[in-house]
Amino acid sequence: MKINNLLSVFAPKDVKFLPLLNEASEVLTNSAELLKQLFESQEEVVRTDLCKQIKNEELKGDKVTGRVFKALNETFITPFDREDIYELTEEIDDSIDAINRAAHKVLLYDPHRLPSCTAILSDIVREATIEVRSAVGELSNLKKTDDQFRKHCREIKQLEEKADGVYEEGIITLFKEEKDILELIKLKEIIQELEKSANKINNIGKVLKAILVKYA
Amino acid sequence: MKINNLLSVFAPKDVKFLPLLNEASEVLTNSAELLKQLFESQEEVVRTDLCKQIKNEELKGDKVTGRVFKALNETFITPFDREDIYELTEEIDDSIDAINRAAHKVLLYDPHRLPSCTAILSDIVREATIEVRSAVGELSNLKKTDDQFRKHCREIKQLEEKADGVYEEGIITLFKEEKDILELIKLKEIIQELEKSANKINNIGKVLKAILVKYA
Amino acid sequence: MKINNLLSVFAPKDVKFLPLLNEASEVLTNSAELLKQLFESQEEVVRTDLCKQIKNEELKGDKVTGRVFKALNETFITPFDREDIYELTEEIDDSIDAINRAAHKVLLYDPHRLPSCTAILSDIVREATIEVRSAVGELSNLKKTDDQFRKHCREIKQLEEKADGVYEEGIITLFKEEKDILELIKLKEIIQELEKSANKINNIGKVLKAILVKYA
Repeated sequence: MKINNLLSVFAPKDVKFLPLLNEASEVLTNSAELLKQLFESQEEVVRTDLCKQIKNEELKGDKVTGRVFKALNETFITPFDREDIYELTEEIDDSIDAINRAAHKVLLYDPHRLPSCTAILSDIVREATIEVRSAVGELSNLKKTDDQFRKHCREIKQLEEKADGVYEEGIITLFKEEKDILELIKLKEIIQELEKSANKINNIGKVLKAILVKYA
Repeated sequence: MKINNLLSVFAPKDVKFLPLLNEASEVLTNSAELLKQLFESQEEVVRTDLCKQIKNEELKGDKVTGRVFKALNETFITPFDREDIYELTEEIDDSIDAINRAAHKVLLYDPHRLPSCTAILSDIVREATIEVRSAVGELSNLKKTDDQFRKHCREIKQLEEKADGVYEEGIITLFKEEKDILELIKLKEIIQELEKSANKINNIGKVLKAILVKYA
Repeated sequence: MKINNLLSVFAPKDVKFLPLLNEASEVLTNSAELLKQLFESQEEVVRTDLCKQIKNEELKGDKVTGRVFKALNETFITPFDREDIYELTEEIDDSIDAINRAAHKVLLYDPHRLPSCTAILSDIVREATIEVRSAVGELSNLKKTDDQFRKHCREIKQLEEKADGVYEEGIITLFKEEKDILELIKLKEIIQELEKSANKINNIGKVLKAILVKYA
């Protein structure tokens, strides 16, 4: 790691990893945008289509992840420590997977209704992915503009806390009001998947903050 | 990593890691075979015995994993990058754990019946582990026979997709037909554990494919 | 890693990592003590307060984890292999998170009663964290006192097996006796979170044993 730091002084401007990381966070943002549309839609045919599109994004994400790992294997000098690039990529990939799972549970369970907390949660998830994309976009000049970067990290954390509150409220309401037990089982799982998505995106934020501490 | 690649030209034929990886995938295949028998059996005494045998395989798997990690720590030159051996071993270990959990849930919940999807899923899991074992067996001469290796990786992926379909069908049927809500809760969790097992084995396939990309 | 081993002969007595690891396991033990109190308490206001205290411990744990990772990045020679310090820290952090989740589920679901298995499980978790703290405390002179260390590792494993038994008994009783299905769903998840906590602490034990194999 020290070696990497020393060498990085001489490293040419990275043209390999940062574009790939930007691409991965673009896929993440797209997935989250589609997820939000899915939770706002009432028509099953629209939902099915959105779910397919999210699955496609997930496959795209898998490919980008594969390209990052391949590039890591072929490159000696990286713009950040190898493990940071590795972890960042993995957390983004995990987040895309979580979004895909949340979307898929809606189709699989086909509940009679979607409680309002699901639309709110998916919108918070969407907002958080936009912050992630912005922060990743700042990685190329972290030393100059760490103010912006810091702000995005803070936003990600605040959105996670907001999601936590909405999740709790949603679960409490569900147990109080839902009289159909099958419906309750289905909706509980869907709401939990959304909360997991928010959680995973917050994990990306943690990795970003760790990178900030090291390099800014 | 580059150092590893350079040195590996001079590395003697590996007699340490490949046998251990073969051993680990043998344990995996045995667990899956027992799991399939468990989901086909009707008698509780037989199930209990199969469950114990699966637990034994899991303990065996833990030991092999420990030996791989110890060997990694003591060896400078490895036949593949350290992290590939590490990850492959971990994913195999995770898959064995998942199979053990699925088996154990049957004993713990003791449902009145096992829906047909559980027997089908456990059979797909078994088939996938056989492909894993075959692929791991090819690792020793990846450069010459990558055709076979590629075929096994493709099979693993296709089996996972098949498992996905069976899982969905199974969950939808369960929610439609099971009137006993306790039974539904139990069976949902058992089916989900089987799907997780299939998923974990697909993760092994992903690591294998990543190795192929690097070395073949 | 070999380099690390060679250099460690000359390494001054560690004054950086071992204190941080001790601090992390102190946070873990505190969380578990509070968790036990929570499962013994009947009053909601007390529970809410304990839950807040556990959340505070979790935040403290996050900070210690961050400091370990930062220190790893800045230090070339470490008392143990980097990955061992990394993994040990992560497993402790994961265990604290699991305890926090278990506590939080009680507040979120607010069940009518807490079955006796939850108090027993949380007490086993507490005992196991004390063993972890003792074992981590022995890391500084592993070569001289590996007997004590070995004993703590064995205890952690035995407590996990004990937890497994209590968990199973608890789940079986719950499905037999709980007639209120909402209550059953809530309690099942709370009991499962406790079992996960015990599991996570056992993972710390596995890392500790792996360190023992390497260095004692």
